Amino acid sequence: MTESEIDELRLQIKEVTSEILTIVQRRMDLSKKIGEIKHSLNLDIKDEKTEEEVRSYVMNLANQRGMSRDFAGRLINIIINESVRLQEKTIDKNNDNPVTHLSIFLKAKELELQGKKIIHMEVGEPDYPPPLIVKNALADAIDNGYYHYTDVKGIFPLREAISKKIGKNLSPDNVMITSGARFGVFSTMSSILKPGDEIICIDPSWPAYKECAKFCQARIRVLRTTLEDKWNPDVNALESLINCNTKMIILNYPNNPTGKIIDNGILDIILKIVKDNDLFILSDEVYSDFHSGKFKSVVDYKYENSIVVSSFSKSFGMTGFRIGYLISNNRIISQISKIQSLSLTSVAEPIQYSALRILNHDVSRNIKLIQERIKIICEFLESLSLEFYYPDGAMFVFPKLKHGLKDTLFVQELLSSGVAVAPGSGFGSDYSEFIRISACLPSKQLEIGLTTLKNVLEKIQKI
Amino acid sequence: MTESEIDELRLQIKEVTSEILTIVQRRMDLSKKIGEIKHSLNLDIKDEKTEEEVRSYVMNLANQRGMSRDFAGRLINIIINESVRLQEKTIDKNNDNPVTHLSIFLKAKELELQGKKIIHMEVGEPDYPPPLIVKNALADAIDNGYYHYTDVKGIFPLREAISKKIGKNLSPDNVMITSGARFGVFSTMSSILKPGDEIICIDPSWPAYKECAKFCQARIRVLRTTLEDKWNPDVNALESLINCNTKMIILNYPNNPTGKIIDNGILDIILKIVKDNDLFILSDEVYSDFHSGKFKSVVDYKYENSIVVSSFSKSFGMTGFRIGYLISNNRIISQISKIQSLSLTSVAEPIQYSALRILNHDVSRNIKLIQERIKIICEFLESLSLEFYYPDGAMFVFPKLKHGLKDTLFVQELLSSGVAVAPGSGFGSDYSEFIRISACLPSKQLEIGLTTLKNVLEKIQKI
Repeated sequence: MTESEIDELRLQIKEVTSEILTIVQRRMDLSKKIGEIKHSLNLDIKDEKTEEEVRSYVMNLANQRGMSRDFAGRLINIIINESVRLQEKTIDKNNDNPVTHLSIFLKAKELELQGKKIIHMEVGEPDYPPPLIVKNALADAIDNGYYHYTDVKGIFPLREAISKKIGKNLSPDNVMITSGARFGVFSTMSSILKPGDEIICIDPSWPAYKECAKFCQARIRVLRTTLEDKWNPDVNALESLINCNTKMIILNYPNNPTGKIIDNGILDIILKIVKDNDLFILSDEVYSDFHSGKFKSVVDYKYENSIVVSSFSKSFGMTGFRIGYLISNNRIISQISKIQSLSLTSVAEPIQYSALRILNHDVSRNIKLIQERIKIICEFLESLSLEFYYPDGAMFVFPKLKHGLKDTLFVQELLSSGVAVAPGSGFGSDYSEFIRISACLPSKQLEIGLTTLKNVLEKIQKI
Repeated sequence: MTESEIDELRLQIKEVTSEILTIVQRRMDLSKKIGEIKHSLNLDIKDEKTEEEVRSYVMNLANQRGMSRDFAGRLINIIINESVRLQEKTIDKNNDNPVTHLSIFLKAKELELQGKKIIHMEVGEPDYPPPLIVKNALADAIDNGYYHYTDVKGIFPLREAISKKIGKNLSPDNVMITSGARFGVFSTMSSILKPGDEIICIDPSWPAYKECAKFCQARIRVLRTTLEDKWNPDVNALESLINCNTKMIILNYPNNPTGKIIDNGILDIILKIVKDNDLFILSDEVYSDFHSGKFKSVVDYKYENSIVVSSFSKSFGMTGFRIGYLISNNRIISQISKIQSLSLTSVAEPIQYSALRILNHDVSRNIKLIQERIKIICEFLESLSLEFYYPDGAMFVFPKLKHGLKDTLFVQELLSSGVAVAPGSGFGSDYSEFIRISACLPSKQLEIGLTTLKNVLEKIQKI
């Protein structure tokens, strides 16, 4: 064998590569044509059933031919994604600039700059302050010289304290301190998901999961839940979404926006499905302190491919400190820490020491406060005969508007009357008749907000 | 047009899909054959030049045929990666675990845990404390209720103060506060680079540039500079590295590790090349305060596609605060801020207020201190007759070892004698005869460290 043989083979590779492009383009042309027909017939561009058929057809071919399933899955996903993009291009882009709780928040801020008073029931940012001692903790950190780079995973005493607080035989190596739960989600997905991988997201859900998955060029499969089913996921439907590309399932209980906590029985089944299919599970438990006793953490299952996301933001009123943590096995923690090392070096050291100081602070007053407000909101919604699920936890209520009233219309109308709430469609495309009301403001303001909500609702429904 | 037409087209798509797989597999078979020949001839599997040719061949085809470059780039990358994987499968993996300043730092920390005393001349973390007033600034932030989510780009007063400090008609919209300069680099690359894009990096260089580019699946082209050329980049060689995939050039002056600041004339030419080729320029200027008068910032050129990275870490001794900032035009800032929004929401608010308080603090004492130590280091190296470039700025000296002595051998030997320095090869594969000595420790320790260095050097060279 010689180098000239390599050159000959390389020439052949060049020709074959050109052929690949030609055929891929032929496929794209066919796909565009289908897009045009779909457009003229007013059909949906996204067609998961057909996509699924194509995918399993390809996987069968790959199997028959001894091709890596991983590679074949990625290849076909990239091609399908481009097809969908091209089909969407042929259609008037009813562009995707979704109204979310964030965009409403920004609009509300704009109105405030113009001098308007806005009651904020749209964001999940508690109004209570952090424990007083964080102020001393920050000053002490400076006095103690704690203003340096730290271990990428976080300072040892904090990781140790968290592992002890959680118990369950966790060690400090099972903990990584992150720059907020958001970075926990981002770093987990970025380190685990590859282009073409799929995640399953249970809607309605916090938009960040999908955004992070998109950043990773992963495909998002949505399991829809409904108010009628009390926001319970259908485990059979969940199972049917799994295919050879599925890599991760996202859970978020207590749920944002519904306040749902699923029963342990359902959680058991989900964990079984996850294990049977060798998937990762990302469980966002930032509201884990906000419930009345029935919550079970995914940590309890000791499943080796689980990653639990937590935060100091909600329980301690420390959103602006940007600190949270991940719990997983040390192999996964090491893998995820590489993303933190790459992008941040470490979390600010004084912030880590302030979190250490308040970790075991009693937060029951905060929890009780939120629960009281949720009760106020729910009673009010009941008086309006709006349908909703009484939250098991978290800090939101997610009612359904009546008579097919659209969330964006209502939310914008309400905002111009000085009250901001989050539109349901920000949490999934099927929830455009819902709004999310946050319990993060003093009850007096909450009552004014709710009264305005009632008035605007009556005004719209009269029109 | 009818749905049955769709069915007909779908049948055709199925056939074409099968063809795609057949041809891709033919390509893989060719690739495997090449792998076997490479194996028998003992050649490297990774062959950047060939990969490069394939990639630019595909990009040209895509251009000619009106195919999305983005899609074509992704497609060919997936195929090339799978080819490399298949080729590697045929060969024993000779894995690459490079020795960097970070790995030496971690080894040094390990030794310290075992009770050994280590003199740290390997990391770029100043030993001077932050301005005293940051302690009050943090406490005031808590008192003022500054512990919330902020504008993604950072609090307005800090962005305003930075734009005023820099002048040059900048507005607060030209500034984004980042979680350290590292996140500035990470977020810039993540928001601008797509898979298959290329960046040009001038070696020796801080490893993070290449690591972030790899994360983005971008390709790295290296322009090597040499001690013999006084670390001046060859602008003709720079130009010859540019091709249709080139997206960004990274500058870092004052340079880590060499301390080089290039002449304004060379910088002018580089800016002209960048403009002529419509490239982005990422200028890491975290050491911009550390020089004796000849430094010119890329901000001065008002080039619309420039992004300047800066930090509070080095000048103010605030590494552990994890705060820095980017300067660019507001369109690019908005684009980059989406990555910060996605992954972090915002930088911790108390930290931002503490940075605001010290922004105009006089740091000349810190600068002078580092310069004095650099002088000590240089005089010592001269006495050993080691070759090096006398730094124009930054906080390091980058001498060449004599008689072909390898950095990793020397660095490990030195570490076992209680002194940590950074191996040159961490900054680029061509610098394995160099070490980086940091001026971030008190002169007494520095002198002990240098004496040990001398002794170890003599000992090795006697063997």
